[in-house]
Amino acid sequence: MGISRLGFVQVRVTDLEEAKRHYIAAVGLEKTEEKDGKVYLKGWDEWDHHSVVVEEGGAGLVKMAFKVDQAEDLAELERRIEAHGLKVERVHRHEDHAIGDGIKTTLPSGHVVQLYHEAEVVGTRTGQLNPDPWPDELRGMGAPRLDHLLVSAEDPHEFTRFFTDVLDFKISEKVVPEAGSDQILAAWLFRTNTPHDVAVIPGPNGKLHHFAFYLDNWNELLKAGDVMSKHRIPIDVGPTRHGITRGQTIYFFDPAGNRNEVFSGGYITYGDFPCITWTADQLGTGIFYHNRELNERFTSVLT
Amino acid sequence: MGISRLGFVQVRVTDLEEAKRHYIAAVGLEKTEEKDGKVYLKGWDEWDHHSVVVEEGGAGLVKMAFKVDQAEDLAELERRIEAHGLKVERVHRHEDHAIGDGIKTTLPSGHVVQLYHEAEVVGTRTGQLNPDPWPDELRGMGAPRLDHLLVSAEDPHEFTRFFTDVLDFKISEKVVPEAGSDQILAAWLFRTNTPHDVAVIPGPNGKLHHFAFYLDNWNELLKAGDVMSKHRIPIDVGPTRHGITRGQTIYFFDPAGNRNEVFSGGYITYGDFPCITWTADQLGTGIFYHNRELNERFTSVLT
Amino acid sequence: MGISRLGFVQVRVTDLEEAKRHYIAAVGLEKTEEKDGKVYLKGWDEWDHHSVVVEEGGAGLVKMAFKVDQAEDLAELERRIEAHGLKVERVHRHEDHAIGDGIKTTLPSGHVVQLYHEAEVVGTRTGQLNPDPWPDELRGMGAPRLDHLLVSAEDPHEFTRFFTDVLDFKISEKVVPEAGSDQILAAWLFRTNTPHDVAVIPGPNGKLHHFAFYLDNWNELLKAGDVMSKHRIPIDVGPTRHGITRGQTIYFFDPAGNRNEVFSGGYITYGDFPCITWTADQLGTGIFYHNRELNERFTSVLT
Amino acid sequence: MGISRLGFVQVRVTDLEEAKRHYIAAVGLEKTEEKDGKVYLKGWDEWDHHSVVVEEGGAGLVKMAFKVDQAEDLAELERRIEAHGLKVERVHRHEDHAIGDGIKTTLPSGHVVQLYHEAEVVGTRTGQLNPDPWPDELRGMGAPRLDHLLVSAEDPHEFTRFFTDVLDFKISEKVVPEAGSDQILAAWLFRTNTPHDVAVIPGPNGKLHHFAFYLDNWNELLKAGDVMSKHRIPIDVGPTRHGITRGQTIYFFDPAGNRNEVFSGGYITYGDFPCITWTADQLGTGIFYHNRELNERFTSVLT
Repeated sequence: MGISRLGFVQVRVTDLEEAKRHYIAAVGLEKTEEKDGKVYLKGWDEWDHHSVVVEEGGAGLVKMAFKVDQAEDLAELERRIEAHGLKVERVHRHEDHAIGDGIKTTLPSGHVVQLYHEAEVVGTRTGQLNPDPWPDELRGMGAPRLDHLLVSAEDPHEFTRFFTDVLDFKISEKVVPEAGSDQILAAWLFRTNTPHDVAVIPGPNGKLHHFAFYLDNWNELLKAGDVMSKHRIPIDVGPTRHGITRGQTIYFFDPAGNRNEVFSGGYITYGDFPCITWTADQLGTGIFYHNRELNERFTSVLT
Repeated sequence: MGISRLGFVQVRVTDLEEAKRHYIAAVGLEKTEEKDGKVYLKGWDEWDHHSVVVEEGGAGLVKMAFKVDQAEDLAELERRIEAHGLKVERVHRHEDHAIGDGIKTTLPSGHVVQLYHEAEVVGTRTGQLNPDPWPDELRGMGAPRLDHLLVSAEDPHEFTRFFTDVLDFKISEKVVPEAGSDQILAAWLFRTNTPHDVAVIPGPNGKLHHFAFYLDNWNELLKAGDVMSKHRIPIDVGPTRHGITRGQTIYFFDPAGNRNEVFSGGYITYGDFPCITWTADQLGTGIFYHNRELNERFTSVLT
Repeated sequence: MGISRLGFVQVRVTDLEEAKRHYIAAVGLEKTEEKDGKVYLKGWDEWDHHSVVVEEGGAGLVKMAFKVDQAEDLAELERRIEAHGLKVERVHRHEDHAIGDGIKTTLPSGHVVQLYHEAEVVGTRTGQLNPDPWPDELRGMGAPRLDHLLVSAEDPHEFTRFFTDVLDFKISEKVVPEAGSDQILAAWLFRTNTPHDVAVIPGPNGKLHHFAFYLDNWNELLKAGDVMSKHRIPIDVGPTRHGITRGQTIYFFDPAGNRNEVFSGGYITYGDFPCITWTADQLGTGIFYHNRELNERFTSVLT
Repeated sequence: MGISRLGFVQVRVTDLEEAKRHYIAAVGLEKTEEKDGKVYLKGWDEWDHHSVVVEEGGAGLVKMAFKVDQAEDLAELERRIEAHGLKVERVHRHEDHAIGDGIKTTLPSGHVVQLYHEAEVVGTRTGQLNPDPWPDELRGMGAPRLDHLLVSAEDPHEFTRFFTDVLDFKISEKVVPEAGSDQILAAWLFRTNTPHDVAVIPGPNGKLHHFAFYLDNWNELLKAGDVMSKHRIPIDVGPTRHGITRGQTIYFFDPAGNRNEVFSGGYITYGDFPCITWTADQLGTGIFYHNRELNERFTSVLT
């Protein structure tokens, strides 16, 4: 009941053809449709019509959309969002191609959050009958699925409260000014059993830090880094280890400047996961465990 | 709301000292307590007091216990189990050491299923403040956590219905006699986002096929296989790939003859995961993807 | 000076078209030429014209051919072979397509050993100018190169002496009846810095146990096992670990029944490598480190 | 015949206790002896008494020492070095602890090169009788062995000629000003079948860029990076991929500021390896394949 997962992210890019080369040939997503100036993309192991939508118009996040488990969840969540003091807007079937009726709200941070229950199902590449573990003819990094996104907000604590109080997310890890403090400077939030489905760091409102694709393991990350070099994709940081989430990572940029991540590993979470706290002085280690320091780009380059 | 995860398995062993050598020195679990003829064990990345309990008395499964998200879930699930026609027994705090009040039932298959909400929290080895990604001084296979169990039942379809109808599990994969059939010969069931938390194959009632520990990746499985050789642990099958779950595996035996597994990989599931169907003629490929055939031990050795 | 490496193996197969599907589509070799009933194959990272030649005619090894470092080595080795009491035959340029003048001899074990210095160079797939680390569009297992072969002989000790005394190979590992014995039951022999370029076990004269392709690591072996399943290639044993050589392995069969191996890992050797001894009672562990026992096929299936 | 391998490197450090903590606890070498202000170290898979010697006195390379295959090689190489116009000095047994008689010369670049044939053999950790593939109780990065070193010279071409013309090394890869040029700006040189045993880049004479330990694979590099963080070891670059050698790498610093590397992967070389050429404009890609650019430290930080 409630939020099932991050369903899709919708982002702006400067050039649709460049974006297709990036997300299809290099990242390895499949184009399920191109329509009305939008390209609909999914990983080979996803069954819904899309997990990424790109549209022309610069760079940055148009919206993040979460899929709910049951149709009835939408009414309950609408009530909760309004009780939280935010305005809810109905999204009618086909306003979003291949997505059913839903609701959306704009957070105080300026991020648009949409909730929906139905999506057109196109199926995974390996199918549902006696499947192979992976399809032949994977392209580029061969990303199987979307994993999470990270955004910036002027008030990360308030952003976090929306996700925990209204959408029933839990906090896996948080950054606080010093040990014992209640103030949340940054938070990693989960509804699934992964380390995070969405996360927030301090920064300007409405901005996207990155969205991430899951890869199976550290060896797939090496291959992904090689593919980035072959495709002349600018790498931000990695391959390396995160302290926060314990995952492995490469940050890189799409042609419009939106930051992507390929991410692997990380622990399992449950509702009673004992929240991990990072003190602000150890944030560098939390983000980049090997080097133990942030580079300047990490906090300044946002779209 | 509802079942959060497989909380612990309780198994019988022929010799407690041998079992400790196996589960502590070789598998790498931590002993959190030994009391009243029971040894309480957990993986280094688990926070609750135990995920495995061993007691003397031969071999086989005493019970499987699932942790629920909220205390209120117990009353609702008690009602549902009774509505399903099964008898519910209350389990009082401290009947199970370090576990709170709960309920239990004996399935028609003879398996005992316990549900509880509270457990004593002892914490993970890396802790909750600015943690390292893994602790120093891991032993043997260094298993971080329990993952799932597989049992046999004369009527796997009935077993499956209990988990889906009463406990709200979903089916990730099932074996059917032939394509299109509604009859479930075997099923893999999930409440978390993993491929399975519990599974059932046809066989005698009340029996355990194996319980499994998660390892991070295929390289950890190689190391685990090496550790098995160093400890003279009999290997059943592996390292190899499962078709079902897509995971990687080694099956091996504890000194009492209970089958263990170390398992890595596998896809992510959600409530709307499109159930995968295996036809009975492809079961060998489903279980052991590389060799495409079952060995005789797979179905005959149970405890 | 002297033997540089195992240059190529020439084997018989029952059906050339089946063999091409196996070695090209599944193993991932490149066909450099097909001529006069022979198919010439190489790995993507090899520069000489071929490392495997297949011809119709059943199954088994036609010959093993070693490349020498310098043209002058051939005369010196001819002298040495004759001094060892074996007959030497000259092989004229173009008797072997794309291979220069050389010599050959038939060992007492019945195996034909050819030595040559020149081969037509066709180059690696990544080239010699600012290369990428791996080529796009690898097929199947993507084997980069031939690694070694293992044969059987009625007198493995005599076979070993030829390679050590005449061709200056060193022994990395040997099996003896019991600790302290001088009798060699089986031997792994190297000229390069790998654990073995050729090896011998007891068995009928003139037979091939397997020839092996190198893969980069244990993850590539998992992928190779998956590819075998997709291509319905019968697997003999693996993925697993060898005790001898410490390498990782899958044994499998080509359509004619010749055993192939994909092999990764293993230590580095030098001329002063301290030879490792296995006592016969531990041979199972030496061959298959995880299970610690030989299967019957290992010693009985030869071509 | 001739050079068998890089036998050992001898380096200066600012503090012997700090160096021991670094090389023993973190890198995982074994101390075989400490004597007369020198600490003798080896990897667990090396059999000779040492592969690294550290002594107090700042930072930088005291000498690089190569082991030759046969005692007679020393006289022949002495003759060749003198014929090359360099002065040869005899090194008497026990001038270097645990090393036999040898010779040394100072190259025009100021680097001291020693050649020897004998070393005290202490054996590997897994031994020579029915060994396990790896020893229990590895520490830190668990480095099994020394792999290569890289130095700087004002005239890399001249440095290269010494190794090719006198010591019979071959060039695996070289950097030239532009395609077709004969001028060598940097060279990677091998005697073994690895991509390089020694390499040279342009820079001040007599300086050390780094010496490298081999690790089995990319997963061991991740673990090594984690160990560096736990030990607060400053990382220079990595984990990442080299274009040159195709290997995977982390560069880091010992407490004296000497650069170390952990290195895995890379192709196999033979005497007829087709030399790879990098044009100077692609040097960034050659060194760091993922990012395709050098950082400033790579060329400026030398000891």
